[in-house]
Amino acid sequence: MQIPSLSRLIAKFKSLPGVGIKTATRYAYNIIEGSKENAQEFASAILDAVNSIHFCSVCGNFTDIDVCSICQERDKTTICVVSDPKDINAFEKMGEYKGVYHCLHGTIDFQKGRGVDDIRIKELMSRLTGVKEVIIATNADISGELTASYLANQIKPLGIKVSRLAYGISLGSEIEYADELTLQRALQDRKIL
Amino acid sequence: MQIPSLSRLIAKFKSLPGVGIKTATRYAYNIIEGSKENAQEFASAILDAVNSIHFCSVCGNFTDIDVCSICQERDKTTICVVSDPKDINAFEKMGEYKGVYHCLHGTIDFQKGRGVDDIRIKELMSRLTGVKEVIIATNADISGELTASYLANQIKPLGIKVSRLAYGISLGSEIEYADELTLQRALQDRKIL
Repeated sequence: MQIPSLSRLIAKFKSLPGVGIKTATRYAYNIIEGSKENAQEFASAILDAVNSIHFCSVCGNFTDIDVCSICQERDKTTICVVSDPKDINAFEKMGEYKGVYHCLHGTIDFQKGRGVDDIRIKELMSRLTGVKEVIIATNADISGELTASYLANQIKPLGIKVSRLAYGISLGSEIEYADELTLQRALQDRKIL
Repeated sequence: MQIPSLSRLIAKFKSLPGVGIKTATRYAYNIIEGSKENAQEFASAILDAVNSIHFCSVCGNFTDIDVCSICQERDKTTICVVSDPKDINAFEKMGEYKGVYHCLHGTIDFQKGRGVDDIRIKELMSRLTGVKEVIIATNADISGELTASYLANQIKPLGIKVSRLAYGISLGSEIEYADELTLQRALQDRKIL
């Protein structure tokens, strides 16, 4: 006795990350119980976003203009390299960083068949004139580390400083509960006081 | 440095029940990282649902036709009274119930200024010819109980059997963890073996 248009809406919500059938049903009921205006605004918000947002032609971050405002306005002598546009979001929320970004759109991962030419490394190498420091902020997993050391090997010979984010125990978390890899890394990278 | 169309999409997702800023952002990125076709389907699913779905003119459940398929096809001598269309969904998933429903769209709640005339009680009373049993399935909270006893007082004099769902310890849950009200109810409504 399901209503086809309701089932389709539930299926669409279920396609979002981490949403199961119960949550999707709850979202769908919220839409059909709400006003038509709200639903129209929701539908337009989805269409406006996909139609206006694309990748910045310089750094690869999401933008609704050709060259994003970060690339236009900020200190170009420091580039922070991330694998995903969402990582830029995290940095911007922190607000401390004043340089520009470069989004690789992935990391080198031979298991997944992603080599050096499949991510935006060439684009990074072509932006390095006048750059003083490249901060590598890929994740601390195998492919993130591999990408970091590959980039370091390519960029250091050009006389540019290359750094990597510090990894270790999260602030506010307890050593007792730290996983082994994190603790190992925190020990290796210990700081002399 | 936020993108306006992205902010609007995040705000819309954030308006869904139980969604905070982090989850809304995750959903919005999922949409803009996905295909335009997917986004168009999502937008149409929202519009189709609100444009096609309304309340059944008999029982008040959601439907995309005038009189819903449950009202058309099922045993009209038993009516199960619920406060919300989502409750019908729960019954239908169980699949045991073969009668029809009546959705009150609320319960009597004087604190919220909802009296007898503000919910679909008149509509229920006008459907009672030929009915053998009315099962009251409002929630076990104060306004649900109040509504149940009001309806029982109105319907029983007509010679129609009125019943109420059983409340007690959930199946699979442990008595040790039952809340006091549930345990109290389970004791009051204990069954002679």
